[in-house]
Order: sequence, then C-alpha cells, then structure tokens
Amino acid sequence: MYDNDTYMPKLKETARANLENLYRIFTVPEAPDSTLGSIDQAISDDVSGFLRTHIVALERTIEDIEADFLATEIPEEPTFVSEYTDFVKEKLVAQSVHTAAPGFVGHMTSALPYFMLPLSRIMTALNQNLVKVETSKAFTPMERQVLAMLHRLVFQRENEFYPEWTHNSQHALGAFCSGGTIANITALWVARNRLFSPDGDFKGIANEGLHRSLQYIDSQGLAVLVSHRGHYSLGKAADLLGIGRDNLIKIETDDRNRIDMSRLKRKLSQLQKDNIRPLALVGIAGTTETGNVDPLDDMADLAQELGCHFHVDAAWGGPTLFSDTHRGLLKGIERADSVTLDAHKQLYIPMGAGMVVFKDPTALSAIEHHAAYILRQGSKDLGSHTLEGSRPGKSMLVHAGLSIIGRKGYELLIDMGIERARTFASQILKNKDFELTSEPELNILTYRYCPEWVRQSFSNLDTKQRCRINVLLDQINQLIQKYQREAGKTFVSRTRLRTRDYGKKIITVLRVVLANPLTTDEILDAVLDEQSEIITRPEIQTLLNRIKDLVDSTKNDLP
Amino acid sequence: MYDNDTYMPKLKETARANLENLYRIFTVPEAPDSTLGSIDQAISDDVSGFLRTHIVALERTIEDIEADFLATEIPEEPTFVSEYTDFVKEKLVAQSVHTAAPGFVGHMTSALPYFMLPLSRIMTALNQNLVKVETSKAFTPMERQVLAMLHRLVFQRENEFYPEWTHNSQHALGAFCSGGTIANITALWVARNRLFSPDGDFKGIANEGLHRSLQYIDSQGLAVLVSHRGHYSLGKAADLLGIGRDNLIKIETDDRNRIDMSRLKRKLSQLQKDNIRPLALVGIAGTTETGNVDPLDDMADLAQELGCHFHVDAAWGGPTLFSDTHRGLLKGIERADSVTLDAHKQLYIPMGAGMVVFKDPTALSAIEHHAAYILRQGSKDLGSHTLEGSRPGKSMLVHAGLSIIGRKGYELLIDMGIERARTFASQILKNKDFELTSEPELNILTYRYCPEWVRQSFSNLDTKQRCRINVLLDQINQLIQKYQREAGKTFVSRTRLRTRDYGKKIITVLRVVLANPLTTDEILDAVLDEQSEIITRPEIQTLLNRIKDLVDSTKNDLP
Repeated sequence: MYDNDTYMPKLKETARANLENLYRIFTVPEAPDSTLGSIDQAISDDVSGFLRTHIVALERTIEDIEADFLATEIPEEPTFVSEYTDFVKEKLVAQSVHTAAPGFVGHMTSALPYFMLPLSRIMTALNQNLVKVETSKAFTPMERQVLAMLHRLVFQRENEFYPEWTHNSQHALGAFCSGGTIANITALWVARNRLFSPDGDFKGIANEGLHRSLQYIDSQGLAVLVSHRGHYSLGKAADLLGIGRDNLIKIETDDRNRIDMSRLKRKLSQLQKDNIRPLALVGIAGTTETGNVDPLDDMADLAQELGCHFHVDAAWGGPTLFSDTHRGLLKGIERADSVTLDAHKQLYIPMGAGMVVFKDPTALSAIEHHAAYILRQGSKDLGSHTLEGSRPGKSMLVHAGLSIIGRKGYELLIDMGIERARTFASQILKNKDFELTSEPELNILTYRYCPEWVRQSFSNLDTKQRCRINVLLDQINQLIQKYQREAGKTFVSRTRLRTRDYGKKIITVLRVVLANPLTTDEILDAVLDEQSEIITRPEIQTLLNRIKDLVDSTKNDLP
Repeated sequence: MYDNDTYMPKLKETARANLENLYRIFTVPEAPDSTLGSIDQAISDDVSGFLRTHIVALERTIEDIEADFLATEIPEEPTFVSEYTDFVKEKLVAQSVHTAAPGFVGHMTSALPYFMLPLSRIMTALNQNLVKVETSKAFTPMERQVLAMLHRLVFQRENEFYPEWTHNSQHALGAFCSGGTIANITALWVARNRLFSPDGDFKGIANEGLHRSLQYIDSQGLAVLVSHRGHYSLGKAADLLGIGRDNLIKIETDDRNRIDMSRLKRKLSQLQKDNIRPLALVGIAGTTETGNVDPLDDMADLAQELGCHFHVDAAWGGPTLFSDTHRGLLKGIERADSVTLDAHKQLYIPMGAGMVVFKDPTALSAIEHHAAYILRQGSKDLGSHTLEGSRPGKSMLVHAGLSIIGRKGYELLIDMGIERARTFASQILKNKDFELTSEPELNILTYRYCPEWVRQSFSNLDTKQRCRINVLLDQINQLIQKYQREAGKTFVSRTRLRTRDYGKKIITVLRVVLANPLTTDEILDAVLDEQSEIITRPEIQTLLNRIKDLVDSTKNDLP
C-alpha cells in the first residue's frame, strides 16, 4: 500500500505541466509587474471605477442574467485567471446591485469606509480560523476585546468587571456570528438552555431534549413574545429550537410601531392559564421596517417580574448608543439579558458580521461544548461558546472601525442619519402627492403615494370603500417601486404595514433607510421627483382614474 | 419635530471638520498615489511579505499578546488609517498563525490560490447581500449555479433535472452557509421538519413545536445515529433542535474508524423497544480526526429500510469526488438525502464557506419562510431557504475556484494529498521511534511517538502495565506537540483516539492533514526530525526513563 514507486511516476508523467501551473496559483507573485500582480491591479482599478459610478444597477431581467449561469457541469479544464476576471467584470460586477450608491436607500446596506477594503484583504490573506487559538493566535484576544467593548457599550458594567471576564478561559462575554439571525438564535438557545439547566436527576435540556424537559416541569410548551414588528429570524429560531412558530406570540403594536404593553400582559395571563411557559420577551431597538424602539424599560420590568429572559434585538438600532443626543431612545437596553448587534449594518463592516452579547458573563456556559482535538476545557478557544464552528476573523474589521472612526465618528454618522430622516419626513409632509406612514424615530421611515385629494375623501367613505381604494393604492405603490428599481437610478424598498390611520387594514408602503453618509437631501428630493414622474405613466394613471371614479361615485351618493 | 433649522446649524458648526473627514473615508480614493491609495499598496506589500515568509508563528504566550488587547472602552477619538495599519502589522499580522505555511500540517486550513485575494476584494467592495435578489442581482443566479454544480457532483442527477430546478423560484437545491456546522444543522433541521410535516389537523413541527409533534406520533423522542468519529457540530445540532445530546447516539467504529454496522443495527432495535424514533443516520466522508469514510452504501440501504433521513457529512472528503482514481471511496454518497461540503477546506476558498445540498429539490421547503419586505412568495430570493439571513457573496469564490482550477485541477490536488499521506505513512512505518496509529484512507493520518522497543515489550505486559506506559506516552506526545508548536517552524495537531492495537484504551496521537500543495516530502521529513530532536529534551527523557523502568521491572518478573 505504501509503495510510491508504482504510483508516483504515473502521476508525475501525465501531470507535470499541470502540477507546475497549480503550484504557481498557490504561490504569491514575487513582483507587482508579474502577470498576477497586474491582474490584481486591474481588478482594483475596475472595482474603483465601479464604485465611483453612482448608479444603482443596469436593469436586465433576472431571467436574462440567468442565461450566463446555466451550465451545471463543473468545467473540466482550468481557465486563465485573466479570462475569468473578464467574465467577472462583464457578467457579475456590471450586473450586481450598487448597494453603496447614495441613491440606494431601500435596504440596510450602505457605503463602506474605504479602509475596509485593504483591511479585508489582510483578513482574507491571513485566513485565520477563530474557532481555536491554534489557528488564530492574536485574533482571539482581539475578538475578545471587541466583544468586551460592545458589551461595555450596551451594559456599562463597572470598571472591575472587564479585567476579570474579557480574556477569561472559561467564559466569553458574547459570540461573533455570521449575522443577526445567528445572533438572535444563539440568544434564545441560551435562554432555553438556562431555563432547563441540569437539576438533580434531570441532566438539562442540552442532554435530554425539549420533550423530556417539558415533561420535567409539567408544562405544555414554551412561548417567545415579541411585537408584530419582530424580525423574521425569530420565527426561524422558534422553529429550529423546537418551540414552534405558533408559540412565537406576536403582540400588536401601538400607533408608533411599539409593542402594546397591556396586550402583552393580557397574553401572558392567557399563556399561564394554558400552562405555556414564557421563555423570553424580545424587545426591538430599531424595527426592520420602521426603525422604532420598543419600551425597553417597561419590558425589562415585566421580564423581571416573570423571571424570564429579556432579549433585545438591536441589530439595527444598537449603534444609536454611540450618540450622546439619541442614546436615551434605547433606555432599558442595559437591563437586557442578551442583545443582538449587527456590525454589517450601522458599524459599516462588510457583509457577514453579527454579534450577541450577554449581561451575565457566565450565560454562554449553557451552550458550551468541547471536542477531543480542539476546544479543550480551559483553553481560550472562542469556538466552545459559538453556534458556528470555523469562522473568519471579521472581528478585526469591527476593531478597525471602532479604532479608526471612534465613538465620536459613529456618533456623527448616527446623528446625521436621524437628522436626514427628519428632513426627508418634512419633505414628504410638504408634498401633496405623498403620505408619511411612519414617522422616523431613528433613521428609517415609510411613506406611500396617496394624493391629498384621496386622503381628504377618506372621511366621507365607509370602510369597504376605503378598502377598495387602498387596494388600488397598493398596486400603484408596488408599480412605483418596481419601475424606480428597474430604472436603476435610485432605489427604495417596499413592505406591507398596518398603520394607525387605516385601522387593522394592511397597506403597501415605500421604505427608506438613511444610513449612507453620502446620501444628500438633494438625492432624496430626486427620489420623490422620480416617483412623481413615474406616476404619469399610463398604467398608473388608469389605476388613479379608477380611484377618482370611486371617490366621485360616493359624492353622488351624498344626499 | 421636522424643523431642521433648529437642529442642523448646531451639528454643522461643531462637526464640520469631522464631517469632512468622515466623507473622505467613505469615498473611493481618486488616484493610486493618494494617501489611501499608498496605504492600500503598503498593506498589499506587507501581506505578500508575510505570506512569502514560511514560518508558522513566532511564539509569544497568549497572556503576553492579550496585553495589547486589554482596553474595553471604545476609543473616543478617531485614529489615522496609517496609524491603525501600523498597529495591525505589529500586533496582529506578526502575531497571527501562518495557516498557509507548508509546514502547518496540523489543521484543515491550507494555502489559498493567490487569485482568491483580488477576487475577495471585489466581493467585499460589491458588498452584495445574498438574502434577496434586490441586494444581489447577478450573484443570485451565480450562487444557484454553484449549488447546482455541487449538487451534480454529488448526486449525478440526469441532464433534464437541472434546467427545471437550478433557477426555480419556488425551490433551492441547497443552501450556502458560513461553514459546515450550519450546513449540518440545516440538514438535520430539514430532516426533522420533513418527519413531522403537516398532516390533517396537525400543522407540522415548524408551527407546533417538537413536544406536540412527539405527542402526535406517540413517541418518546428522536435519535440521530453516527459513529464515535462524528463531528462535534452534530452534538450542537442535537442540542439546538431540541433532540438532546443523549439522543445523538454514537456508535463504535471498526478498526479503521468506520461505523460498525452490526452495532448500529443492534442499537436501532433497542431504540425501537424504547419507542425512540430514528430521525437520521449520519455517514461521514472523511472523519475530522482520521480522514476515514463510513460504508455509505450499507448505511443508505439501512436508512432506506428504516425510512429515515440519510445525511452524509462530507465537509472534508467531499472533493474526493473530483478524482477519477479515488471517487470510489465515497460510493453511496449519491444515495444520501443531504450532503455537507465545506468550500473553505478542500475547495481552497477563504474561511467562512460551507454548503449543504439535498437530493430532493423540494426538501428545503420544510424550512421555508417568508417576510413582508423580502423573501416574498415566488421570488428567487435565496434567503427563504437558508438558516442564516444576510449573507455575503462567498459563492463567487467557489465559482472562481471551479472555473479557474477546474475539475482536473482539483483532481490533481486530491490525488497529490492522498499520495503525500501514503508517502508520509511509509516514512513513519520505517522510523523506529514512531508508530502509525491510523492509516491514511484520504489525506489525514495519525501517529505517535512510541519507540519500537516499547511496542515490542507490550506483548509481555498485562493490561494494567500497558495502561501505565500509555499514560506516560500520552504525556510525551502532548509535550512533543506543544514544543513543536512553540518553536513555530512546523505544526501538527493532537487528539485522543481509540485505536485497534490498544483495545478500548484511548491514547493521545499526533494528527497530520495533507491538503497544502506546497507541502513537500522533505518538509514532512523535517517534521519527524524536529520531533526526534524534541525527544532529547530532559523533561521527555525523564518520562522515557520511567517507561524503561516499567519495562525492565516486568522483565525481571519473568521466570
């Protein structure tokens, strides 16, 4: 079996040329004027050119683009790097969405600080694996430091706390994750496992599973409670953790998209009668769709009273804590048991960086795990307290952001975003064609096309008539969003929302997220101008005429 | 509230200078000779320098390194990018682990093809979010194509299959993940939800949860069965999914680290008596510690008989399918219901890229989810079928690898690794100081320091005496690994393994993973030479003398 003489020559003869090519691609080019060096430079130039061109995307239908990605056989023969980069340039870069464009205000991706590019290159080249110290070395203390900094931002524990816990070999103050979804799942996983920790003969839920755990406390199920504005990742968490989506109880909101505390309390009484145990209350600090913040202090009081876990999903709004002016909006977050933060949102880190931090530095023990070859007891390996296994050194980019931008720089970004949202809201309020459907509390707002004459007519209409008009308005707003996206100059997103003015009716609204510091008031004016222009299209005019007919017909009905 | 005149001037006065600095960092430098341009260049040069220096790591204790990462307050003031990059160079790059070094053969990280660096830069700069088409455009069809290519590699479905399913707006052939852990969890999540799919009044486990689901089928629990060599992520999955670690049933292996089929069957009979439902059998294609492959065809037969899910964890060994010579080792994998592949292992992609593919193109419907603002029904958004939410465009790097290296290039890499492992095994067999503890089936092997005279003495010793000697050998091997790691020239890992020669006794072994194409036979000889050198240290000689005494004392016992 171990005789190479029979095997190696064959391999060597047939593949010597290929082997040499292979070695070459694994070797760092010696000089910038080598082939790979110049390709590297050309790619950098190309990306720069793309980033400087402030367009959102050239519209081609997705089916049209798919034509370039139909082959399902893995290419048999190798391709030259230069040939492949031409493909990337034409078929991918030119057909990607310019998420950093100042007119791309529809989703939570923004421009990146330019220094993230060379630093990401270092991160990629070093290829550290944060699961264990043996494959990450200095990156492990660096990540622990970043977790401690964010922990401190949120929980403001005393000075003595941090030296004891930051680099503690038994514990971690939080977990780096690929995003907010894993962070939220980790938080609820910890909450579940702490509720059912080992106790006498009962070995804990981690070992015995959910079924026996519920039998052990003689309960019919667990519930997680959050407002209707809760992120969809919470539904995934309820499913994954075996709790069930039916037991993710969604509570109605008040007229500012914040959880209705009296309804929450009523629901909790009901659950008690049904012998369902409340596992966690989830507060939202910056709802995905409207940017509102739940009454976190009230929720903390209630969670304390119930003795249940209090998680705050601050994936969006967490960095508001940087701002002296606006920090108060998140009052109560320091009383949470766990808090989710997304670094790829308002910390301006490239995609794929979330975090969850826990007030109690021993909380993550509830999901601790070990293996024979790594994550040994007492090691400082971060992998023993994360849902994920092998992970890249993304925390380095958070470290860079915190260091280079600093607390005051982030404060400025937060303040600017909130200010910009207020300015845009005032523009919408002044515009007779549009209706503001949620006022910005942070830097997100929603609105819709709904001309003043339609709004004025509503008071004379009955529910059924309003409903018919709203259905037509929904179609118009869908078309506005679609045509604007296709034109590729600017981009807003759309969602469906229950707003105070239309009772229980859900309407389609346009959504704007203002986190890109390069977005100006002039660009936002252009967004509205473009929408006003789109409204003149015949397809939309036809729908508008149907609304006019409806309004007119009711006028005729009047005595 | 919307009057900016009272708010904006204040912000503008105090922060105009800061604002200008902020704008600058978000703006792409116009010319390569600008400050940022030259920093960018300096970083590239520095990384190249680091990568060309083939050392593993300069040893400083982790406590010593921690001294650079103690501050837990977020810096108040901004820092110059140049100042920060100096810090990165001195404190991070110089203190990171050179995972790409040809002498770093202890873990599964290897050298990267150089083209991954400029392409990663494009990926970072474009900052696409694969959760939805609106923020990823061409990246969505590209990722779907990559999933189809890997699906085809594994399952070899017929030609007609792929045009129907690759770009299907209702389905996805698999899920891109941050790594193999999320891939394994996704596979078992799908298996669990398919077992308890909606049925009449029963709304399915996704909605009703695990407790009611088990009540519904009147079962006491679920079990997942895998060999003792199963990856630790399966324990996390059992915990997370509510199944419980006690119900992750670990089956003993045969003398080649493969699951013992007769023990597996006996265990299944026992579970049936206990009214525990087998959820899934998990086969391993390339065990983490020894690189062995389970009898996948036999396991597929058994899973079929039981009507349960058959998952194959091919995170390590999957790419063996590229090799005409060695593909047969994985026979039966095409009968799996789901297969995990890790692109950041033997596809040579930077850290953070896993995948799971499903034979049945509708399988992922079991975890499908939607939201009002994205992932709408009928969209091609990949996010409706992934555990994670927002995700970067890592699949582009897999696409690049498959295109540039090609099937034949990967075949060569696989063949070389297996060949290198065989050569190294033959070197160990020839060396009187070392004992091969697991023969390489793929490109992983384990061995330990155990001189020939100790091995020869074993036949004359009773179990208790052998046991005492093995404990001393364990200490010696731990020290060898530690001193070698600290010297920083080469690196092997260590684990604890039950091997055929020592019955049920678990021993400490050294582990070598041979996937870096730049690792030569000479480097491996140097690894053994360095270890032989370490053995001469007084600390180890003392331990060796104790073994000698033990062996001698038994000789005296002989008649």
